[in-house]
Amino acid sequence: MMTEPPRGFPTEEFAGRLARARVLMAAAGLDGLLLTTEPEFRYFSGFLTQFWQSPTRPWFLLLPADEGAPVAIIPSIGEDAMRRGWIEDIRCWSSPNPADEGLSLLADAIRDRMGPVARIGLPSGPETHLRLPLDDLDRLKRALPGVSWTGDADIIRQLRMVKSEAEIAKTAHICDLVSDVFERLPTLIRPGMSEREIFRRFKIACLRAGADDVPYLVGGSGIGGVGDIISPPGERRVGAGDVLMLDTGAVFDGYYCDFDRNYSFGSPDDAVRNAYRIAHDATAAGFDAARPGAQARDVFHAMNSLISKALGDEDGAGGGVGRMGHGLGMQLTEWPSNAAWDETEIAPGMILTLEPGLTIAPGRVMVHEENIVIRADGPRYLTRRAPPEIPVVAA
Amino acid sequence: MMTEPPRGFPTEEFAGRLARARVLMAAAGLDGLLLTTEPEFRYFSGFLTQFWQSPTRPWFLLLPADEGAPVAIIPSIGEDAMRRGWIEDIRCWSSPNPADEGLSLLADAIRDRMGPVARIGLPSGPETHLRLPLDDLDRLKRALPGVSWTGDADIIRQLRMVKSEAEIAKTAHICDLVSDVFERLPTLIRPGMSEREIFRRFKIACLRAGADDVPYLVGGSGIGGVGDIISPPGERRVGAGDVLMLDTGAVFDGYYCDFDRNYSFGSPDDAVRNAYRIAHDATAAGFDAARPGAQARDVFHAMNSLISKALGDEDGAGGGVGRMGHGLGMQLTEWPSNAAWDETEIAPGMILTLEPGLTIAPGRVMVHEENIVIRADGPRYLTRRAPPEIPVVAA
Repeated sequence: MMTEPPRGFPTEEFAGRLARARVLMAAAGLDGLLLTTEPEFRYFSGFLTQFWQSPTRPWFLLLPADEGAPVAIIPSIGEDAMRRGWIEDIRCWSSPNPADEGLSLLADAIRDRMGPVARIGLPSGPETHLRLPLDDLDRLKRALPGVSWTGDADIIRQLRMVKSEAEIAKTAHICDLVSDVFERLPTLIRPGMSEREIFRRFKIACLRAGADDVPYLVGGSGIGGVGDIISPPGERRVGAGDVLMLDTGAVFDGYYCDFDRNYSFGSPDDAVRNAYRIAHDATAAGFDAARPGAQARDVFHAMNSLISKALGDEDGAGGGVGRMGHGLGMQLTEWPSNAAWDETEIAPGMILTLEPGLTIAPGRVMVHEENIVIRADGPRYLTRRAPPEIPVVAA
Repeated sequence: MMTEPPRGFPTEEFAGRLARARVLMAAAGLDGLLLTTEPEFRYFSGFLTQFWQSPTRPWFLLLPADEGAPVAIIPSIGEDAMRRGWIEDIRCWSSPNPADEGLSLLADAIRDRMGPVARIGLPSGPETHLRLPLDDLDRLKRALPGVSWTGDADIIRQLRMVKSEAEIAKTAHICDLVSDVFERLPTLIRPGMSEREIFRRFKIACLRAGADDVPYLVGGSGIGGVGDIISPPGERRVGAGDVLMLDTGAVFDGYYCDFDRNYSFGSPDDAVRNAYRIAHDATAAGFDAARPGAQARDVFHAMNSLISKALGDEDGAGGGVGRMGHGLGMQLTEWPSNAAWDETEIAPGMILTLEPGLTIAPGRVMVHEENIVIRADGPRYLTRRAPPEIPVVAA
């Protein structure tokens, strides 16, 4: 097991992120970025709290393109915690206050830092959203008639896709912890347990091993394969002939792993054994393709071709997932997508999941998932590779 | 301990929710509602999955105001799970596909059900957001030039604020489970443990007791009171003279509790003892005020007046939280707010938190929180009431 990496980041890391954002803002002709979502707010401020689960209060981070300091406009409930971080210009209002939910403060900050006429980027592209009521966006626009609002010119995506060594260490750590739990899982469960009980034991084992939380744990069980890969566990009792699959996003210091493991209760039949091997081989093909200079779609095609050839069937690949892996970091899924349409260039520092899947029989899928980091000379596994044959739980 | 209530809801419950929404849509002159966020999608469809943590794919639920059936427009990865629910008109696309992320399907569904000219409501008010990239909202508007987009006329808020008996049973169950864990906590921890270790033990105990998950667990410790109430646990070791506070949102079948408990390590000093009693008394005052026909602000004023009088100081109340409790259900925090500005009428079926807080000393706060349900003849506690004196952990 690895040593636990340090929590948080040195101030230089945030200063570097901001400096890179400024170069890109200048190139895009933006006077600033306005961020409203948790990962973006945290990426530049370091502010980590589960309080974002409450939808009541907006949080704003304003990044001026010039040398002016970033401004956090936040509910006063967050002030003490925020002052422990590196952001110095913190402006608070007593929230909730639907009559003026931080909008006057925000408008003032924009006028202060950028003047009455400015071009401000809001993340607006794929996999983003605005964490602000639509009515409040309208109010903000009316309060700042000289401001033109536009997308973020892909700046956030470009920055967040390439991870620092400190970020990689956090994901590597949670991948290592959870790999260990997956390896020990057969000793923690037995036939006749419900899916719910198995998932509970897995989650407790992750917490004991040092995961901060296990926000994502889905999967299921079924004779000869699982039916879908996004459902919560049910009361079904797992026994002989079943395939059990758990797919988890556990976190350490705000960084996710996202991978799965499959188990056979009793000896697997040939269809399961074969599907598992194909998915395992496809993962290896994806790994080999995930080199700097390749594109995300190349990683997809490497996995998809192997599966299609093995099945002699174009339609069997994928299992309805729409892609075969994705970026990973502060969120369970991030850009890019290992998909036929994604031309994102693979670069050192990216963390990706490899997630090949195939249909074993109607309504029965087999999905594998591993996490990798891209280095200058090629990929490295962050997860401990799944065994080449499906692990068996005595049944 | 209670028996575990059944999971899910009967179809009639969803049909009733839809029928009530239709009455309100007709009154507001809306041809339909378009929902994009997890609680809203789940409220009308019953679809429960942690997959929403992935920001990649939008999910849409279209509720026509007329007798037409609701339409779910969803990524194909969700199709199998969705077909196990009560929604029959399910339309899927292979997602992610940023070139057309479900928008053509959605636009077709709107044209099918409402014709080319329609008035569609999007939740746009306080505590809402649109879970869709801004660029895609623009595309949707361009694809449907005859559609006028407006707010949801407060329909979602009105419906969700009043809970059904089945919903109340789920929240009551998780409140009961977690009350039990809080009562046992002093036997699970000891002086010298770090906050992180204490929080981990608490979380594991909740999972063992039958919580599905503990998505929210914040708090901290400090000599004579805690510093803020939204931070994650740290490495600080808790010992003599400390107040320890844990505030948790655990879930059962998609419904939250949200309450906290305070502990003193060793005998509390007078300031802590006194602050605890004031917060306890304020909770009782809030409880007494939370009767059908009162307003949310009355509940606030009952708590706030008691605290202000006890402190002889208007400014000591609240501790920067901005309100003294809120609605609770599918989300950790929901409408209304127990705040001076909130005129929402308290009605039977509402679930509220009572959350009075006060400043003990600069940077030291004491916050209590209980969960209640409103009945025709008055409130009932769903949490097992905190003891009237701060519980002591031997130190």
